[in-house]
Amino acid sequence: MDRNQLFQQIQKKRSFLCVGLDTDILKIPKHLLDKPDPVFFFNKEIIDATAQYTVAYKPNLAFYESLGWQGWESLEKTVEYVRENYPEIFLIADAKRGDIGNTSNLYARAFFEKLDFDAITVAPYMGEDSVKPFMTYPEKWVILLALTSNKGASDFQFLQNEETGDPLFESVLKTSQNWGTPENLMYVVGATKAEKLSEIREIVPHHFLLVPGVGAQGGSLEAVAENGMNSQCGLLVNSSRGIIYASAGEDYAEKAGEAACKVQEDMEKLLKGRKLI
Amino acid sequence: MDRNQLFQQIQKKRSFLCVGLDTDILKIPKHLLDKPDPVFFFNKEIIDATAQYTVAYKPNLAFYESLGWQGWESLEKTVEYVRENYPEIFLIADAKRGDIGNTSNLYARAFFEKLDFDAITVAPYMGEDSVKPFMTYPEKWVILLALTSNKGASDFQFLQNEETGDPLFESVLKTSQNWGTPENLMYVVGATKAEKLSEIREIVPHHFLLVPGVGAQGGSLEAVAENGMNSQCGLLVNSSRGIIYASAGEDYAEKAGEAACKVQEDMEKLLKGRKLI
Repeated sequence: MDRNQLFQQIQKKRSFLCVGLDTDILKIPKHLLDKPDPVFFFNKEIIDATAQYTVAYKPNLAFYESLGWQGWESLEKTVEYVRENYPEIFLIADAKRGDIGNTSNLYARAFFEKLDFDAITVAPYMGEDSVKPFMTYPEKWVILLALTSNKGASDFQFLQNEETGDPLFESVLKTSQNWGTPENLMYVVGATKAEKLSEIREIVPHHFLLVPGVGAQGGSLEAVAENGMNSQCGLLVNSSRGIIYASAGEDYAEKAGEAACKVQEDMEKLLKGRKLI
Repeated sequence: MDRNQLFQQIQKKRSFLCVGLDTDILKIPKHLLDKPDPVFFFNKEIIDATAQYTVAYKPNLAFYESLGWQGWESLEKTVEYVRENYPEIFLIADAKRGDIGNTSNLYARAFFEKLDFDAITVAPYMGEDSVKPFMTYPEKWVILLALTSNKGASDFQFLQNEETGDPLFESVLKTSQNWGTPENLMYVVGATKAEKLSEIREIVPHHFLLVPGVGAQGGSLEAVAENGMNSQCGLLVNSSRGIIYASAGEDYAEKAGEAACKVQEDMEKLLKGRKLI
């Protein structure tokens, strides 16, 4: 999917919501555990209930890997289900991969060929040759970690460079612009650092930003939109637990749909306020 | 496995070799492709041929993920095979994971509970709460990326901090010592930067270092030993392609054994030179 198609989806659905499919077998409703593949069943119901309010889904790989090969099978079935039933959706593998060049090639094969994801999150520590193999696929995307939403973000991401004065996350933003374009590169920027978003927008005016940390982690949607939106929206805001675990009962899918609808309505107002729809 | 047990293995086998099981279905001998699980079959034969010369195996996850859930199944069978037949081996998941705290918990569950690895490689970019969940398991290890062996290492790992003058990889070494001890924390230090090893040894005198990049990537074993060895050896030196692809013919396992034996003989000399055996 290219950038214009993504913006068109945002306009059509009046939403820039990404739903994080962080499906933990220990947290899904207990009555699902006698299904043949409870994780896939849960995902399918959540997707059916939320797809009209959502432009992207983002399974986090940790949740699937914790179940071994069966978890990977659930993930593969989930990706196929979205592709078959909601082909307009932007699918993100939240995998935070990154390795030496010939190994990153294999990760790209895993997520863009074996699995038909549109994008993968990548960690920047190992530099250019760990990131670029993901960019050789047309209409596939790297989403590079820049400023994350967790407490540990302060350990290294704010270390200032002696020569330029830039904190590390700004060095990542600036250096990586030589590796890709706004057509194949996005950045992860945590909502808990919303005050930083306007500084980041000055460095990367045209790139999409994937913003986790709204809701459970405490970030505000309004602050994110105010500081981060550009003329093509330029934001995918993720919510995981607030939507997929909106209810632990038999009405979990219905409640997830209601929670997603509520976020979509807030997003619609923000898009209208910016005259983007 | 604790640090003393690891050193005892090194003394007993007169080797600090780690064999990288970077098993690429496109590179293994063609006559294996009609086996029910060619990747597992290849690994099993390589392990049987090299285990007497080897203290650790290190499957890189990318190679298994590129085959989807079947690849994960091959990995699980490989781990079980090592555990059943060579219980003395130190098993490293070269996964380069790292995510916000509650997600790293799930990765720890994946690699230390679902799979019985001894250690996992972790990327430091997201800081303390992305690393510590792996350290809550007794006798399990984090191997944190410090200075990697690839070209892209120079993009961020050498950026010097304004306040301390330390390059980023030294900040990682220093800060992370507050998170773990030489009993549960090792570091990845590439052999292609062997001249840096003695500086690194001053910062982390007691920690084990996992050293990739000897052989195919051009690093020298002698230089690594000279600059990096400590009183408990303190080194695991990885070789992947030079051993597992020593031959592309039907004698691939035999040739892998010979290649591992040759490295072990060199390592024995270096251990004797330091009076460690």
